[in-house]
Amino acid sequence: MRQELLITLSKRTPIPLSRQVYEQIRSAIISGLLHSGDPIPPSRLLANQLEVSRTVVLNAYEQLQAEGYIQMRKGAGTFVAENAASLFASKLVVNEEEGFDEFINAPDFMAELSSPYSGLLGVTHSVPYDFRHGVPAWSAFPMDRWQKSVVEACRNMTPDMLTYGPAEGTYHLREEIARLVRSTRSIPAMPEQIVITSGATQALDILARLCLHKGEQVVVEDPSHTVLREIFSFSGAEVLPVAVDGEGLCVDRITPNKDDENRKGLPRTKLVYVTPSHQFPLGVTMSLNRRIELLRWARSNDALIIEDDYDSEYRYVGQKVSALAGLDTSGRVIYIGSFSKTLFPALRIGYAILPQSLIEPFLAIKWITDRMTSTLEQKALAEFIKSGYYAKHVYKMGKLYAGRRSCLVASLKQEFGDRIRYFGDEAGLHLLIELESKVSEEEIAKQALHKGVKVYPASNYFAGDKPNNPTFLLGYSNLTRNQIQTGIQIFAQAERFCKVKNKSLNK
Amino acid sequence: MRQELLITLSKRTPIPLSRQVYEQIRSAIISGLLHSGDPIPPSRLLANQLEVSRTVVLNAYEQLQAEGYIQMRKGAGTFVAENAASLFASKLVVNEEEGFDEFINAPDFMAELSSPYSGLLGVTHSVPYDFRHGVPAWSAFPMDRWQKSVVEACRNMTPDMLTYGPAEGTYHLREEIARLVRSTRSIPAMPEQIVITSGATQALDILARLCLHKGEQVVVEDPSHTVLREIFSFSGAEVLPVAVDGEGLCVDRITPNKDDENRKGLPRTKLVYVTPSHQFPLGVTMSLNRRIELLRWARSNDALIIEDDYDSEYRYVGQKVSALAGLDTSGRVIYIGSFSKTLFPALRIGYAILPQSLIEPFLAIKWITDRMTSTLEQKALAEFIKSGYYAKHVYKMGKLYAGRRSCLVASLKQEFGDRIRYFGDEAGLHLLIELESKVSEEEIAKQALHKGVKVYPASNYFAGDKPNNPTFLLGYSNLTRNQIQTGIQIFAQAERFCKVKNKSLNK
Repeated sequence: MRQELLITLSKRTPIPLSRQVYEQIRSAIISGLLHSGDPIPPSRLLANQLEVSRTVVLNAYEQLQAEGYIQMRKGAGTFVAENAASLFASKLVVNEEEGFDEFINAPDFMAELSSPYSGLLGVTHSVPYDFRHGVPAWSAFPMDRWQKSVVEACRNMTPDMLTYGPAEGTYHLREEIARLVRSTRSIPAMPEQIVITSGATQALDILARLCLHKGEQVVVEDPSHTVLREIFSFSGAEVLPVAVDGEGLCVDRITPNKDDENRKGLPRTKLVYVTPSHQFPLGVTMSLNRRIELLRWARSNDALIIEDDYDSEYRYVGQKVSALAGLDTSGRVIYIGSFSKTLFPALRIGYAILPQSLIEPFLAIKWITDRMTSTLEQKALAEFIKSGYYAKHVYKMGKLYAGRRSCLVASLKQEFGDRIRYFGDEAGLHLLIELESKVSEEEIAKQALHKGVKVYPASNYFAGDKPNNPTFLLGYSNLTRNQIQTGIQIFAQAERFCKVKNKSLNK
Repeated sequence: MRQELLITLSKRTPIPLSRQVYEQIRSAIISGLLHSGDPIPPSRLLANQLEVSRTVVLNAYEQLQAEGYIQMRKGAGTFVAENAASLFASKLVVNEEEGFDEFINAPDFMAELSSPYSGLLGVTHSVPYDFRHGVPAWSAFPMDRWQKSVVEACRNMTPDMLTYGPAEGTYHLREEIARLVRSTRSIPAMPEQIVITSGATQALDILARLCLHKGEQVVVEDPSHTVLREIFSFSGAEVLPVAVDGEGLCVDRITPNKDDENRKGLPRTKLVYVTPSHQFPLGVTMSLNRRIELLRWARSNDALIIEDDYDSEYRYVGQKVSALAGLDTSGRVIYIGSFSKTLFPALRIGYAILPQSLIEPFLAIKWITDRMTSTLEQKALAEFIKSGYYAKHVYKMGKLYAGRRSCLVASLKQEFGDRIRYFGDEAGLHLLIELESKVSEEEIAKQALHKGVKVYPASNYFAGDKPNNPTFLLGYSNLTRNQIQTGIQIFAQAERFCKVKNKSLNK
């Protein structure tokens, strides 16, 4: 059975019913409401819907077919004919519409969108050697096992699972996550404190809307991911970048909130956003001293801390450090986790572990934002974790990524020798490097892209002092060793090519 | 394989390694980091992870087992023992945490949350006769066929589908939706204008954030769904309820936006939210004249219209009316649709059909909000629509709901005779009624609930003049005829009971 068609018949006019049906379908095709290949309902169905005899509809269809508007395909049904609509369809895109540039909020934030959605995800032109960061190794993903979890979740779906579930997510998944963070991150979390979100991004956006009034300040690490500035500033907050050193965020450089008396009217720091396990993009692990300093700062300045633990699962050398949230006894740390890096980003499941008093208001915003996150994949994920396959997968990926990381470092050393500086611990899915070179990042990246290698300039992550030399963020998790070696060779060639070209231009 | 456990060993202390392992697991149990039943990693895995010999781990496990902290279950693995953690777990919920009431934005909107998330969805106590509105008939849902679509979508998943898809949703689904609204709603939509959202709610929230500056006005119908006031006012807008009569929104009662000269500083109406197909909750269909009047108003007052077509699929008498968006030639109507009513709410898929100039900024907000909607169910839904099963299901449900609606009306007539007023056309999934009675809505609802019948008082949908009599919104789509008959009998008894009780109290 095909979709119904909106047709209105009048029995009061002298125009025969079949002619009315004919006219309306024809005009729907001419006006572009129906496109080539669109299905036309079976005559029996349309007759039923219009409460007329089937002959009425059949007569109309015969006429339409005779004039080449529709085609009947044996067994498949009736469709708008190939060329019938193509003449008319094109004019549809243009309408009288005026622009709404001044009308909407867009200008306020579009200008600040340094990584617009279309650049990062819309059209991603495939390139043979893409050093994109934060992308898991697709080919190693246990698709079969994951599909099994989804199919099982789907098979076990009962009618009551079709309705709105709780805004905070299914209890089963929250229980599995609580168990996971207790054992692997040393956070004494209860399922009741965990809220499932549509990716970590949604958790951040909700927190921004929850905690930040217009003009208030939020501290982010400098350098940091540009999306933070986008999210926080769209919520009307002032984003305050604070430097990171070898121990993590320089807590002593955050301006303290003044006493209540003097603060009136002055912006106040409400939130401090950090990535303690593996600073993005520098890769530093925040030291224990610095963690304690930060917790103290938050307490004495009445601020909250967001701990984004985006890729803590991968650490290749040395022992894992527990989460900042595990050290917190004052309920000031909000922990954010995600399955984008360990499983896959198209699975839009992240979570926030919240202090008691924030749970209700957080959920209220989740509720007006999108009610809840879709149930099916929550069920599948809970099963996948419970079965032990999640841990197995993370463990396996850790080994794989460690090898790829070593390969990347070796390749870079071979190509650039002493002219390169590496940042960060041996962890995560990316490496930040600074090249001793007079060529600009953009120039190198452009030349490399020309040869099939995509590298990612990293200066725009720095809000304050930009690096003196070209800086790149190289992801290695989704590239084979061969791809890494060849990719880095081409990258080095690109840099040399630009150098020579610039010299000859300057002569 | 089980989850890993965060354990740090030091080779510099005189404490034996196995003692260190023992101590840390024991203290994790005592401190509540591990709960009864939590898995302990297999000794081989933990040894591997800690880079020690397996004997070290085995010794520690033996000690822990001897002291009753952990239990080995043949074939299943090792777990924290039943009673080991229960003594300690309870103290975790309480922490030093202070309240953040003054800190967060919660007070601004929690007070206005007339239907807090927990009331509507959190814990829905099951009641034998629940006249909840907007809920599809679960038992008639083609679960097998839907599961087939999901399984197929999952089986066909390729690695490139694991990464971030386009923020606007998969092209395939947008194409199917474009075809659907072209044929059934007479909207000449192109897939390029359609953005998939996580339910219609997200589309509304994004539009509020996109179009409304603090203090600007948005017109909503009076009565209307309370969630609209929540969404719009959380975005800082002033919500302006405007009355609805038998033809729909009273456009002539909207205060016009003054000329630019005089308007400065004064709030301006940027958006008008309407439900033209089946006004919520009154059930009126907006007349053609009123539609044209509204489009003209929007044009001359430089405002946008949101058309929420939440349950247009169901109309039991008379012919369907096409969408307002189909009449619009100036690109001022944003059409919002959803699959919550036709399929099921836990499928978080809705969509917005946008004028050209709003697409990019809408997507930019979608991107900072949650990046994109999960891919899997988009794929499944596209297949479900394409195969014709969606149309078949909607058609079948229409017949079912029509029968249930007649049954409800007949039951009400039988029980209340002339003392009842019905609102709205024969369409949708709910009926608004007003009872001629001196008993209050809450009293009747409470007494009915006591007898197992849940009816929904509707006064809170009215922002301006409240109805003089008790008013209820009755959903009938998820109740059998028997349930409807018995439920309405009990409902009527409840009203009579309250009347008699009040009389005897007033004596």
